[in-house]
Amino acid sequence: MPIEKANKAFINYLDSYRKENLSGHLLAPVDYIFSLGGKRLRPAISIWINQLYDGNLNTVLPAALAIEMFHNFSLVHDDIMDEAPLRRGKATVHHKWNTNTAILSGDAMLVLVYEILSDLEENKLKPALKLFNFAALNVCEGQQLDMDFENQDSINLDDYITMIGLKTGDLLGASFAIGALLANASKEDIDHLYSFGKNTGIAFQLQDDILDLYGDQGKVGKQVGGDIIANKKTCLWIHAFEKANKDQKAKLKKMIFEADPEKKVSLAKELFDVLKVKEDADAIKSQYQKEAFEHLEKIDLDPTKKNMIKAFALNLLTREF
Amino acid sequence: MPIEKANKAFINYLDSYRKENLSGHLLAPVDYIFSLGGKRLRPAISIWINQLYDGNLNTVLPAALAIEMFHNFSLVHDDIMDEAPLRRGKATVHHKWNTNTAILSGDAMLVLVYEILSDLEENKLKPALKLFNFAALNVCEGQQLDMDFENQDSINLDDYITMIGLKTGDLLGASFAIGALLANASKEDIDHLYSFGKNTGIAFQLQDDILDLYGDQGKVGKQVGGDIIANKKTCLWIHAFEKANKDQKAKLKKMIFEADPEKKVSLAKELFDVLKVKEDADAIKSQYQKEAFEHLEKIDLDPTKKNMIKAFALNLLTREF
Repeated sequence: MPIEKANKAFINYLDSYRKENLSGHLLAPVDYIFSLGGKRLRPAISIWINQLYDGNLNTVLPAALAIEMFHNFSLVHDDIMDEAPLRRGKATVHHKWNTNTAILSGDAMLVLVYEILSDLEENKLKPALKLFNFAALNVCEGQQLDMDFENQDSINLDDYITMIGLKTGDLLGASFAIGALLANASKEDIDHLYSFGKNTGIAFQLQDDILDLYGDQGKVGKQVGGDIIANKKTCLWIHAFEKANKDQKAKLKKMIFEADPEKKVSLAKELFDVLKVKEDADAIKSQYQKEAFEHLEKIDLDPTKKNMIKAFALNLLTREF
Repeated sequence: MPIEKANKAFINYLDSYRKENLSGHLLAPVDYIFSLGGKRLRPAISIWINQLYDGNLNTVLPAALAIEMFHNFSLVHDDIMDEAPLRRGKATVHHKWNTNTAILSGDAMLVLVYEILSDLEENKLKPALKLFNFAALNVCEGQQLDMDFENQDSINLDDYITMIGLKTGDLLGASFAIGALLANASKEDIDHLYSFGKNTGIAFQLQDDILDLYGDQGKVGKQVGGDIIANKKTCLWIHAFEKANKDQKAKLKKMIFEADPEKKVSLAKELFDVLKVKEDADAIKSQYQKEAFEHLEKIDLDPTKKNMIKAFALNLLTREF
C-alpha cells in the first residue's frame, strides 16, 4: 500500500467516525476542527507503516484516528495559548465559540483519544497506551518549554532542539512506532522507528525555520520572514545571536523593535547572511536527518520497503516551500 | 476495612506518587493542586468498595489515584472557566501561575490519569477504561451544560438535574463502580453501584443547594445565601421561578439586580418561604436518595456490608452544613 492509499483509507474512516460520533452540543467544536482539514500526515504514516509490516488495517485505523484526534486537540488548546484567531484560514475554536468552550471541547477530545484507543485488541492495549502516553506527555512538556522561551532573553541551541523535539518530534515518532507496534514488529524496530520519526520531525522543524526566510517566495505562499516579524526565536535567530559580536548583538536587539515589517526582515536577512546562519542551520538539519536515517537503516524490513520510507522522508525534508 | 482506613491508605499512596512522579517544571502545578488537600472522598470510596468485595489493594490504589487525578484536573480547568481566584483558600493554579500554564498542566493531568490506568492488569484495563471514559465524557458534558445555563433566562428542573447528574453524579458513580469492577464484581453489581453513586451525587448536590440558604449558619462556616448573591440558578431558584405568579416572577427578576447582598438574601428567603421551595427541594432530594438506595438494595453483597454503605451515604446526605 502506498502512503497515498493509507491517507485515503484514513479519510474515509474519519468521515464515518465524524458522522457517527461527533454530533451533539459538546462535540460540535470537535467536528468543526476536523472539518478544517489538514494533511492527515500522522495517521497516514501509522497506517502505511502498519501495512508495510503486514498489519491488519482494521486494527490500525482507530489508532491512527487517536493520533489525529490528539494532534487536533493540541491545535485547539495551543491556539488558545497563542491567542491565534485563525487556523487554516478559518476561525479558531476559541474565536468561533469562546475560550471556555475551546478548553472544554479540547478536554473532551483528549478523553475521546483514549476512548478510541480502548477499542484496541486486549494484548495491544497496554503497550499502545504506554507508547502514546509517553509521546503525549512530551508534547505537553514541549509546549510548556515553548511558552517559557517567550520570556527568556536568550535560548541556546540545545534547549531549542529539545523543545522542538518534544513539541513536534515525539508525536511524529509515535505515529511511525504505533503502526509497527500494532503489526507485531519487534521492540527494536518500534524503538528505531520512534527515533527515526522524532529526528525527522526535528529536521523538518529546522527546515521550516530556514524556509521562513530562505524559502522560494513564489512557492512559500506566505509572508517571507514571518518568524522574524513575530520575533520568534528560531534556529536562525539563535545561531545569529550566538555568533554575533557586540555590535551585531546590539543590532539584533534593536531589530526587535523595528516597526516596519519589510525593513525588519531585510535588516535580519542582511545580518543573518553576514553571519552565515543559513549554513549553520542547514548543517544541523543534515545532522538530524542523518541520525534519522541511521535508525531507519537498523530496522528489520526488506530494503525495498526501507527505501520507500527513506524516499518519503527525503521528500518531506527537501521541500523548498 | 472501614472507609477511614481506605482514606488513609490512599493518602499514603498519593504522597509517594507525588514524591516519585510530580517533580519537574511542567508538573509543579499538578503537585500544587494536590498540596491543597481535599477530602479525597472519591478515591477512598473506590478503595473501600473494592475491599468490601475482597479485592486487591494494590490493584485498586492506582485506579483510585486516577479518579482523584481526574477530579483535580477538572478543578484546575473549571477554575479557569469560572475565573475563580481561590480554591480551598489558596490561589488557583491559573492565578498562581497563569491561564496558559493552567490549561497545559490540566492537559498533562488528563494524560497522567491514563498513564496511571495503563498499569492495571491486562484483563481489567479495557473495562476500566470504558467505565472511566463514560464518566469523564459526561463530566465534560455537564460542565458545558452548566456554562450554557449561565446564558439562559429560565432553566427547567429536569435540565438542571441532568446537568448536576453529569457534572457531579457520574464521577461519584464511577468511584463506586470501579472499586467493584477491579474486585471482579458482577456486571449487575457494577451497574447498580454506578447508579447508586450517581443518584447519591444528585441528592448531595440538591442538599448543597438547600444548605446554602437553609443550613445551620454557625456550622456552614460560609456566607449564607452565597448562591443567591452570585445569581446561581440552584434548585431553590428554579422551583421558585416555576411556582411564582406574575408579581412574584417580577420580584425574582428584580432581585437579581439588588446590590446589597444581605438585602438580596433576605428578599430571596422571604419569597422562597412563601413559595415553600425548601419543601419541594427536600422532596426531590428524597426521591433521588430513594432511587440510590433501591440500586444499593439490589447488589449481591452481604447485608452487613450493604448497611455500612447505606450508613455512609445517609451520613453524606444528612449533614446540616
